Amino acid sequence: MFQSFDSTTSPDTGAARLKSLRDALLKDGLDGYLIPRADAHQGEYVTPRDMRLAWLTGFTGSAGFCAALKDKAGIFIDGRYTLQVRDQVDLDCYTPISWPDTSLIDWLTEALPKGGKIGFDPWLHTRAELEKLGKTNIELVATDNLIDPIWYDQPAPPLGKMVPHLLDYTGQPHTEKIKTAAKELTKAKHSAFVLTQPDSIAWLLNTRGTDLGQTPVALAFAILYGSGHVSLFMDSRKSDAALIAHLGPKVSLHDADGFETTLASLSGTVRLDKTCAPEAIVRLLETQDIDIAFDADPTTLPKACKNQTELAGTKQAHIRDGAAMCEFLAWVDGINPETGITEIDIVKMLESKRTASGKLKNIAFDTICGSGPHGAIVHYRVTDRTNRNIQFNEVLLVDSGAQYLDGTTDITRTMAIGAPPPKAVHHATLVLKGMVAISRLRFPEGLTGKDIDAIARTPLWAEGLDYDHGTGHGVGSYLSVHEGPQRISRLATTVLKSGMILSNEPGYYKEGAYGIRIENLIFIKPAAPIAGSDDRNMLCFETLTLAPISKTMIDKSLLTADEVNWLNVYHQRVWDSLHGLVSEQTKDWLEVACSPL
Amino acid sequence: MFQSFDSTTSPDTGAARLKSLRDALLKDGLDGYLIPRADAHQGEYVTPRDMRLAWLTGFTGSAGFCAALKDKAGIFIDGRYTLQVRDQVDLDCYTPISWPDTSLIDWLTEALPKGGKIGFDPWLHTRAELEKLGKTNIELVATDNLIDPIWYDQPAPPLGKMVPHLLDYTGQPHTEKIKTAAKELTKAKHSAFVLTQPDSIAWLLNTRGTDLGQTPVALAFAILYGSGHVSLFMDSRKSDAALIAHLGPKVSLHDADGFETTLASLSGTVRLDKTCAPEAIVRLLETQDIDIAFDADPTTLPKACKNQTELAGTKQAHIRDGAAMCEFLAWVDGINPETGITEIDIVKMLESKRTASGKLKNIAFDTICGSGPHGAIVHYRVTDRTNRNIQFNEVLLVDSGAQYLDGTTDITRTMAIGAPPPKAVHHATLVLKGMVAISRLRFPEGLTGKDIDAIARTPLWAEGLDYDHGTGHGVGSYLSVHEGPQRISRLATTVLKSGMILSNEPGYYKEGAYGIRIENLIFIKPAAPIAGSDDRNMLCFETLTLAPISKTMIDKSLLTADEVNWLNVYHQRVWDSLHGLVSEQTKDWLEVACSPL
Repeated sequence: MFQSFDSTTSPDTGAARLKSLRDALLKDGLDGYLIPRADAHQGEYVTPRDMRLAWLTGFTGSAGFCAALKDKAGIFIDGRYTLQVRDQVDLDCYTPISWPDTSLIDWLTEALPKGGKIGFDPWLHTRAELEKLGKTNIELVATDNLIDPIWYDQPAPPLGKMVPHLLDYTGQPHTEKIKTAAKELTKAKHSAFVLTQPDSIAWLLNTRGTDLGQTPVALAFAILYGSGHVSLFMDSRKSDAALIAHLGPKVSLHDADGFETTLASLSGTVRLDKTCAPEAIVRLLETQDIDIAFDADPTTLPKACKNQTELAGTKQAHIRDGAAMCEFLAWVDGINPETGITEIDIVKMLESKRTASGKLKNIAFDTICGSGPHGAIVHYRVTDRTNRNIQFNEVLLVDSGAQYLDGTTDITRTMAIGAPPPKAVHHATLVLKGMVAISRLRFPEGLTGKDIDAIARTPLWAEGLDYDHGTGHGVGSYLSVHEGPQRISRLATTVLKSGMILSNEPGYYKEGAYGIRIENLIFIKPAAPIAGSDDRNMLCFETLTLAPISKTMIDKSLLTADEVNWLNVYHQRVWDSLHGLVSEQTKDWLEVACSPL
Repeated sequence: MFQSFDSTTSPDTGAARLKSLRDALLKDGLDGYLIPRADAHQGEYVTPRDMRLAWLTGFTGSAGFCAALKDKAGIFIDGRYTLQVRDQVDLDCYTPISWPDTSLIDWLTEALPKGGKIGFDPWLHTRAELEKLGKTNIELVATDNLIDPIWYDQPAPPLGKMVPHLLDYTGQPHTEKIKTAAKELTKAKHSAFVLTQPDSIAWLLNTRGTDLGQTPVALAFAILYGSGHVSLFMDSRKSDAALIAHLGPKVSLHDADGFETTLASLSGTVRLDKTCAPEAIVRLLETQDIDIAFDADPTTLPKACKNQTELAGTKQAHIRDGAAMCEFLAWVDGINPETGITEIDIVKMLESKRTASGKLKNIAFDTICGSGPHGAIVHYRVTDRTNRNIQFNEVLLVDSGAQYLDGTTDITRTMAIGAPPPKAVHHATLVLKGMVAISRLRFPEGLTGKDIDAIARTPLWAEGLDYDHGTGHGVGSYLSVHEGPQRISRLATTVLKSGMILSNEPGYYKEGAYGIRIENLIFIKPAAPIAGSDDRNMLCFETLTLAPISKTMIDKSLLTADEVNWLNVYHQRVWDSLHGLVSEQTKDWLEVACSPL
């Protein structure tokens, strides 16, 4: 079982740990210290060793930070975690601060009107982040990490092996990728780029790992040189002969200890991505008077645009995942709440259906299984403490994903247990209209996700409703389930390009009642020319996800003929793709689930 | 008659004038000279005196510039003017350059590989424009204007009076506007802001003028001080006792000659808008070591958000204009091409219908009257040379606007003469669907025009079609018909706010065949709450323009019930608002035109 339901932290330990930290502050002559959720790689997930924020405060959300002063401690969290933070931290010690409404610097200058020294670990913060703080009488002082010495049982760093990811899955030798990325550096007159994001390294070197569990990467740093050489830095215990053979002569493997020395010896103009490179690296280069160019990670865009092999792989992964989803959805359809089924039972059943394929490497993230009012908590994760029995006549939202060697999946379906509230069916139909509009969209080249985000929302807007998250995020190829830079959102700035995989997941959340979200993964491809039309290059989406969308949650009278037709064609495709891969019992269910609306 | 149909320039004069300019170049030791379309106020329209680009080259388009070197001259124009420029300039002297595909600096460095000195008039270029040129071995040298001395019959600057614009139309005393704008300066710690845009001055001081004809402003400069005082600089012949009485004690009037001396004597931090302030002003302040802050014109946003008086006025203007449009459209519907009606006849008839109200101050821009293939030329303006007889069974596009004391109008209707080509009806219906989608849109606060532009295009995109202009531009209140910063476009960055007036004008252009555009003006207002819905603040549009949309150009089978309903409700409103204001004959026509689809 990949998912755990334990409450890993408790508010009870927060006071004592904060006291230990304050002792350290005093010793170092500091007025405060910053404890971020991030690690040195600035990814969405961190290892247990890097969960310093959770260890100190009890707060386990995926974003946020704590500013601990001598007499107060603010825990900065965004709107998603307003409720969770109150549940997880000792409110006598930690004051939740609504962020980014209140900025760190505003809070600090109010708390320390005469100024002060705030310590931070430069490996855990980026230049972009520090620049946002601006200039005030608050002095930010780079220090050693103050949590690690007081965390007596801090877990060791993971030592999972970095393993080759086969050409059958990647479609392009890493030697070619390195050559192309090095050429980009040379063209920009940069001598080297420092890779700090593990998924960039994994993509560039065609390797994977297990350090982050649900994201199949090995934590490491690397330097790509304009010469076409790569130096990889990580604990030597994470490599073996097979890896060294795979990496070949263009990639040299070094122990992690050599990273800083190598950085200090760089010459020419070194490129850094200021949104993810640790401030420690920036300062190290600055100290050595090495010229720095802040620019984008050269692997980001090619990683985002999947090649034909990667797309073929992800299609296979989605067929396999779709079959498991059908077994699961058929089982959900037969749930009798009288037998006492809980959210955890549902999560376990879904994972067992995926495991049955024999190909599941891990789940892509902790399954979100929100029954009734829990569905309205967008980032709900069930634990033993929050677990809840499924009730008659309520709505169930299940958002889950899988990691297979050939691709990453991410799917949300919203189902009724018994007879759903009519309002929920109405809202689910509006959500479906937006989701279908994105699925059917044909659009000119050159647009960003910002240009099309509204398309998914207009049916909800028309009734005064909306959802407070993006419409879609990028997805990797047996890599991060949230992968940039592409997304469909008001904040998107990256031009949409052929080969990019995105989620398409509008939703609606009625606090205290139910949550609705329908999510398919889609990828971008050139739209076939239309006979007799103008000669304009356009793009369109092809849907990857294969699983029925619950018809019980649809009010057909709200759909146009085109929308009904899209759904029927989609369900026919689901049936054609999956009916030969499921059990006889599920096949009967699938036939009904995929019959025309 | 406000509109003229003369071809004001000829390609024949280009060679001799270029030779005169080159003589001046030699004398000044320059390798080239820049001749922009712009004047010192960087607006869309310029006075005859400032039409240096047209005088030199013959090109009369509303955007572009010429770079004249010793042995070649490039005329830089965007895609709208590719055809027009070939018609208007002597191609033996001037080489059309597709801009911005080819940048000025790339063209210059190729033409002058060893570098060179290029002269420019710093009153006609902005810092933002010059910064785009970057650093090369081309030296840009600020000089006196080199065209004015060789333009022997250059018209004199206009001397129309600046007149008060009454509170009945503006709704807010200029003293209040000045106070608010000055407060914004003080808050930003700026001592003054230099106003260089005549519509900013007109709005701030509640004045209007006639210097630009179709845009009712007086050309002037002004300085707004943080103290709440304004210094206005213009030829003293443009003022009179009534103006001075209106301006009151907070606004001091100075002769234009005093402007530079006053600039040189400024202290503190002076705000300039780098997108419109002449480079000459920036350099003058720099020479005096005066601290400059580049920031937005503080009048732009309050000018864009119309108050209740301005909205009430514009509604009246649209009723008046709608009645004139109905008289005109009824007449168009009766055109018999056998009688030899031309595009110019149509433009004249439209202007006469507007004049008949007795309230027309001017047309808002030269009417675009494109019959058949001329309709596909987005910025077509009929002259004696291009004039064309209306034919049976073709499409006619008429885009026009009016300036009334209480508001500015801008409307496009596309009509069939006889039986339109079925493809044109199909395309016009797709355009209508996009236009209705914007009209019906309800959207959350905080969006920009970029977020909603796609809504108008999806019906066209679905068939592989699009249009190469924005969906909407801002419109002033008896001011500029193209007023920033709000717009509905992929390039829009301004947040949409209540009170902003916009055009809603999707189109489709079939080169060599026909053009289609349907344009209404709309304004933004808070959307009424929906009972039982969530408590979200949303905005919506209210349509200002009142005139029937041709039903002959609609294929009803392509419309949804909601779209048909929108059109029928709109036509009912047109009928209710206008049937009492038109002639008996037009009333009969209007009844049919407004009957349900």
